[in-house]
Amino acid sequence: MSAQPPTLGVGMAGFGFIGKVHAHAYRSQRLFYDPPPALPKLVGVCTSRAETAQRAAEQGEFEFGTDRFEDLLAREDIDVIDVATPNQLHREQVLAALEAGKHVYCDKPLAVTLEDARVMVAAARARSELSHGMALHCRFVPATMRARQLVEAGRIGRVYHFRAAYLHSGYEDPQRPISWRLSREAGGGVLSDLGSHIIDLMGWLLGPYETVHADAETFIRERPTGAGGGARAPVEVEDYVGFRAAMRSGALGFIEASRFATGAQDQLEFAIFGERGALRFDLMNPNWLLFYDAGDPAGDLGGERGFKMLECVQRYPKPSALPSPKLGVGWIRYHLHAMHDFLAAVAEGRLGNATLLDGARAQAVDAAVRESLATGGRATVADL
Amino acid sequence: MSAQPPTLGVGMAGFGFIGKVHAHAYRSQRLFYDPPPALPKLVGVCTSRAETAQRAAEQGEFEFGTDRFEDLLAREDIDVIDVATPNQLHREQVLAALEAGKHVYCDKPLAVTLEDARVMVAAARARSELSHGMALHCRFVPATMRARQLVEAGRIGRVYHFRAAYLHSGYEDPQRPISWRLSREAGGGVLSDLGSHIIDLMGWLLGPYETVHADAETFIRERPTGAGGGARAPVEVEDYVGFRAAMRSGALGFIEASRFATGAQDQLEFAIFGERGALRFDLMNPNWLLFYDAGDPAGDLGGERGFKMLECVQRYPKPSALPSPKLGVGWIRYHLHAMHDFLAAVAEGRLGNATLLDGARAQAVDAAVRESLATGGRATVADL
Amino acid sequence: MSAQPPTLGVGMAGFGFIGKVHAHAYRSQRLFYDPPPALPKLVGVCTSRAETAQRAAEQGEFEFGTDRFEDLLAREDIDVIDVATPNQLHREQVLAALEAGKHVYCDKPLAVTLEDARVMVAAARARSELSHGMALHCRFVPATMRARQLVEAGRIGRVYHFRAAYLHSGYEDPQRPISWRLSREAGGGVLSDLGSHIIDLMGWLLGPYETVHADAETFIRERPTGAGGGARAPVEVEDYVGFRAAMRSGALGFIEASRFATGAQDQLEFAIFGERGALRFDLMNPNWLLFYDAGDPAGDLGGERGFKMLECVQRYPKPSALPSPKLGVGWIRYHLHAMHDFLAAVAEGRLGNATLLDGARAQAVDAAVRESLATGGRATVADL
Amino acid sequence: MSAQPPTLGVGMAGFGFIGKVHAHAYRSQRLFYDPPPALPKLVGVCTSRAETAQRAAEQGEFEFGTDRFEDLLAREDIDVIDVATPNQLHREQVLAALEAGKHVYCDKPLAVTLEDARVMVAAARARSELSHGMALHCRFVPATMRARQLVEAGRIGRVYHFRAAYLHSGYEDPQRPISWRLSREAGGGVLSDLGSHIIDLMGWLLGPYETVHADAETFIRERPTGAGGGARAPVEVEDYVGFRAAMRSGALGFIEASRFATGAQDQLEFAIFGERGALRFDLMNPNWLLFYDAGDPAGDLGGERGFKMLECVQRYPKPSALPSPKLGVGWIRYHLHAMHDFLAAVAEGRLGNATLLDGARAQAVDAAVRESLATGGRATVADL
Repeated sequence: MSAQPPTLGVGMAGFGFIGKVHAHAYRSQRLFYDPPPALPKLVGVCTSRAETAQRAAEQGEFEFGTDRFEDLLAREDIDVIDVATPNQLHREQVLAALEAGKHVYCDKPLAVTLEDARVMVAAARARSELSHGMALHCRFVPATMRARQLVEAGRIGRVYHFRAAYLHSGYEDPQRPISWRLSREAGGGVLSDLGSHIIDLMGWLLGPYETVHADAETFIRERPTGAGGGARAPVEVEDYVGFRAAMRSGALGFIEASRFATGAQDQLEFAIFGERGALRFDLMNPNWLLFYDAGDPAGDLGGERGFKMLECVQRYPKPSALPSPKLGVGWIRYHLHAMHDFLAAVAEGRLGNATLLDGARAQAVDAAVRESLATGGRATVADL
Repeated sequence: MSAQPPTLGVGMAGFGFIGKVHAHAYRSQRLFYDPPPALPKLVGVCTSRAETAQRAAEQGEFEFGTDRFEDLLAREDIDVIDVATPNQLHREQVLAALEAGKHVYCDKPLAVTLEDARVMVAAARARSELSHGMALHCRFVPATMRARQLVEAGRIGRVYHFRAAYLHSGYEDPQRPISWRLSREAGGGVLSDLGSHIIDLMGWLLGPYETVHADAETFIRERPTGAGGGARAPVEVEDYVGFRAAMRSGALGFIEASRFATGAQDQLEFAIFGERGALRFDLMNPNWLLFYDAGDPAGDLGGERGFKMLECVQRYPKPSALPSPKLGVGWIRYHLHAMHDFLAAVAEGRLGNATLLDGARAQAVDAAVRESLATGGRATVADL
Repeated sequence: MSAQPPTLGVGMAGFGFIGKVHAHAYRSQRLFYDPPPALPKLVGVCTSRAETAQRAAEQGEFEFGTDRFEDLLAREDIDVIDVATPNQLHREQVLAALEAGKHVYCDKPLAVTLEDARVMVAAARARSELSHGMALHCRFVPATMRARQLVEAGRIGRVYHFRAAYLHSGYEDPQRPISWRLSREAGGGVLSDLGSHIIDLMGWLLGPYETVHADAETFIRERPTGAGGGARAPVEVEDYVGFRAAMRSGALGFIEASRFATGAQDQLEFAIFGERGALRFDLMNPNWLLFYDAGDPAGDLGGERGFKMLECVQRYPKPSALPSPKLGVGWIRYHLHAMHDFLAAVAEGRLGNATLLDGARAQAVDAAVRESLATGGRATVADL
Repeated sequence: MSAQPPTLGVGMAGFGFIGKVHAHAYRSQRLFYDPPPALPKLVGVCTSRAETAQRAAEQGEFEFGTDRFEDLLAREDIDVIDVATPNQLHREQVLAALEAGKHVYCDKPLAVTLEDARVMVAAARARSELSHGMALHCRFVPATMRARQLVEAGRIGRVYHFRAAYLHSGYEDPQRPISWRLSREAGGGVLSDLGSHIIDLMGWLLGPYETVHADAETFIRERPTGAGGGARAPVEVEDYVGFRAAMRSGALGFIEASRFATGAQDQLEFAIFGERGALRFDLMNPNWLLFYDAGDPAGDLGGERGFKMLECVQRYPKPSALPSPKLGVGWIRYHLHAMHDFLAAVAEGRLGNATLLDGARAQAVDAAVRESLATGGRATVADL
């Protein structure tokens, strides 16, 4: 590719934790990929108040900060709107961005409800000249990308059963105050927060979901409001959700998401058992994908059989300039990969590996899990 | 304890794989424990045919072999009947042994149906002067014993959620012929075979089950009969079962048993997440129990927090003569521990750690899982 | 700290792999630390040819590129010279930078010879108003920082013995052509390349070296020149070095560096056994430092003893804005930490955690190892 | 093999820990192997005092106990003398046993000095009609046997470098009293105790040693005598030894043995890096041998490369009756394998896998290490 990569102006809505992560991912493309897929230019950032917007602009080295989302849409030199706001704002902002003719990069989960997600996908389909992406970074871990390659190459074969979990422990302290992540309206439970990642990942690896059957629990039902004076408010969302999933392929699985997995840091795990092979992975040991090839010859003392710790380090995507492939990866890296994929798609006028549709499909599973929780029975996952 | 350990005559029914394991466990007590809990004497062995009985007697160094179970019961010098036959014979033999005034050591699962199990427990209760034990060896792994100590000491606290699995891969070959382990009448599915162990273990660690909700699958539905000529027969039992369990304590869990976990050897795993601590274990790395103490101080760079690989090697039970405590354990060792516990209980005129009642409780969970599979709904676990 | 962080202009010499890593580290301070220790401004970059300089300036977003190192020194708005050139240029550039009144950040190893290192340290000492740092990123892995905390707090006590290794496998292909990393004059052997890191790290953790006794080997003694036509040149440097080290504390150790450790990616490992505790670490599983506290109570079934996997994730240094502490770390992250430490030292007019003196001390061990290789005997490590 | 296995009468000298382990191994052959290699009959046991001999006979179920070694030699029905006494008695007892026409199974290390070992080997060679074996159980771990298979099949190729260690921590308590294992005369240092195993194992895997260069240390130089009253005695032997080894093949290695490896249980580890592959092993996780095949194809995201955890469980030796191959192994199991190998050799009138000559070869390395410690220089390992 000898042509100069295109410059893409970015307007970002929200500048909390994930906004900063995205800003870093934009800024790092030029150093990490040679050539970079595009030359992102951080033009404007929008937060809810003027003061924070100003500070965000400085910290993220944007040209301007604003508290009016329309200011981003109005700019000719902004090509991409990055939606890094709380979940309940995604629908309105994505629709407005598409309406304004901007490419969209949206944090997960896509929306609070499946209905919102459907509307957003319809809008995106109607503007097929625009690209769109989701920050589903779990698809961009070298080891999960390798897992997908192996699945696609038929190395796992028919999947018998699997399990997957995304485990955190950050809410176990009963003194941790209420926040939007504990509010139902904001879409803040663990199903949306961590569940959206593991649901998407397993769907990406194993194909569409058919039905789910779920349990959930809120272990701490009231928390301080943070306003002091002993004021407390009810927790409206689940701390833990676990559901059995039947995939269209016939594979049976169990998927969990928890904020109460004592001792867990950022523990995304899966194990997949298939007719031709098996896979195991743990995000806290991200440099290895464990792969078992059932076609390996048996023999005295075990022959050639065993799980191989495939070395999945920094080899993606090519061409990669930095760092060298043997060096261990960490969380921040996956977001660089995700951004590379999105920017390349924008630059080439196509869709990338993680789109609004993918976000909507995870939302459909989310909705089915909620239906199962409400009815106590098995629920069917909607088509999209 | 300066008194001479009592001599206990043993009559064994069945001399397949597990019978040999028990025979080894009896014979090894004298060398591994000092003093041994008892001096077992292998008196008689019963198999289904005279020729195999004779060979069993030689191989196990019994005084005699027979194909008549009554021959064992008739002997005055037999104190203990060891039931190591296929599952469907357990009821009749256990009842007869108790009737004959013999202590009973029974392989798992206790029975094929919950009704059988109830009858057996009632008989055992009626003969309270007799001791009885089950070969639930997973309770006798040093690491699981340590897990139980920690639970009992309140180190885990309220359990939020857990998962557990017992995974094998031995039936994936579609050419593996039909056997009693694939017959419904003989109680041969994976739920009885591996499930009985993991069900018992989690109940032992976490207390009684309340409800279960299950899926199961038979992945290979027809197999060669082994008679040659291309004859095939249907597989009547499940290859995989997974069920959500709600414990009386409020803990939510997911439990699996599989013969189709590609790449698994003898993989019994659990993870338990509680208010005060967490536990992780994998039987293929049996020398370590991972324990997280949520009371450890946090701090810069992580403070003192983390899973500790508790070194659970050969320290049980005291006094132990052989081998020294630092040496790694393996599967055969757990059966020595289990036998020690049973023989000590017999010698002291009490019940040990794993009794017919424990077997029956696992059977009640088994029955509830089958009910759930039949109805598609949640099933309640019966009291015993 | 409410004052605005100072702006620091950076001039970089060299823009190969490590120059890009440093550029990324400068650019990321503002997002990753809040407040950042300083606001680095990438002013100029110098490479050996005008064309590459221009391209480097674009890729790294420097204000200008040049092929004349003096251009960097001449700029008033450059406060820091970053020396990211091949080893044999370090001496001249560091001396010139100090002479020009610039702070210095130098890639490892400090120099090709101990004599060079001494001269550089003397120059730095003579300009005590200037700060200086080394890119010894292994000191800035959360787990190694935690190891140092534990050592300093007396949690390991008297160290009995230790071992450490830095293992790569990148040179095993005999067709990999000759490069400066295989040239003696450029200081390119594995001792300088990987050895400098592990030597520094173990000295940082365990205190000064007293004597060393070494073996080395060049496994592939001739390689293609890269010029084609079958031309080959001798390899002048070692592929592997291993040496016994006696520390002043009395601890005995063995340290290895290899480019021929088949199957290794970026495997820096150590194990330290002391009177009060032990440590184990492997850079390919960087989120955990294994710590054994010999003061933990023993007891039945192992008591409380065992290696604890201390969760050493992204908690350093405070205040840290990005990402959240539970997320797994990777190689690129350590360089951010190292740069933070250096920039904070510059901003506060002091020295940081890794200085030219530290680089020189590692050079003294390097020199002693070379002496031992030359004489076949034990060599004493020089004081600095 | 349809012939009845031969009955072999066993006389055992010594009945401490290792004597009991051997007794268990003899007694278990019949159950674990089908057919067993021989039918061992435990005839007599000799200890230093009549009372302990009587108790040993009961505990081990020998026909008689004695405090006169000649009593064992005099018995016609004793075919095998098992030497399980402290090291300094091995020479005399082995020579006498061979002289009396008995097969010999000797605990490790073979002797206290190389001169003793030479005499013993010469005697064994002179009685070539007799078989002899050493209890070098590390050769009989399924994973080490698999390692040897891979080496012999050329899967590792030319070995570049390796390291190996045998680490215990049992002597760190300064109140642990003096014993024969801390006496020079009895051959009690860690070099003889643990070093003999790791020296033998690495020689078995990698071929003959050429030179060694060693360090050693006694960390606690005086201990209680155990007689009470504060009496103390000097420790005469090393607590730790580490030596660089050059093999005849050109491989460079480092080998350690320690009783002061804080936190270690029974940690025998090795890593071998070769031109075609690499191996890693840790005896505390014995069910897996890690094997890296350098011929595996590279590729995007790592291709097929990585260490494979070969499942090395209970498959050796064939035919094996008990337990099934998938079940995890532990320490006691390796001694069953070692005994099987020896008894099969006796039954078939040949030598097995671990003979007195192997013990003598390890003794030659031991002697060279001691020479190196005495001279401070490199020492050459004698031929045998």
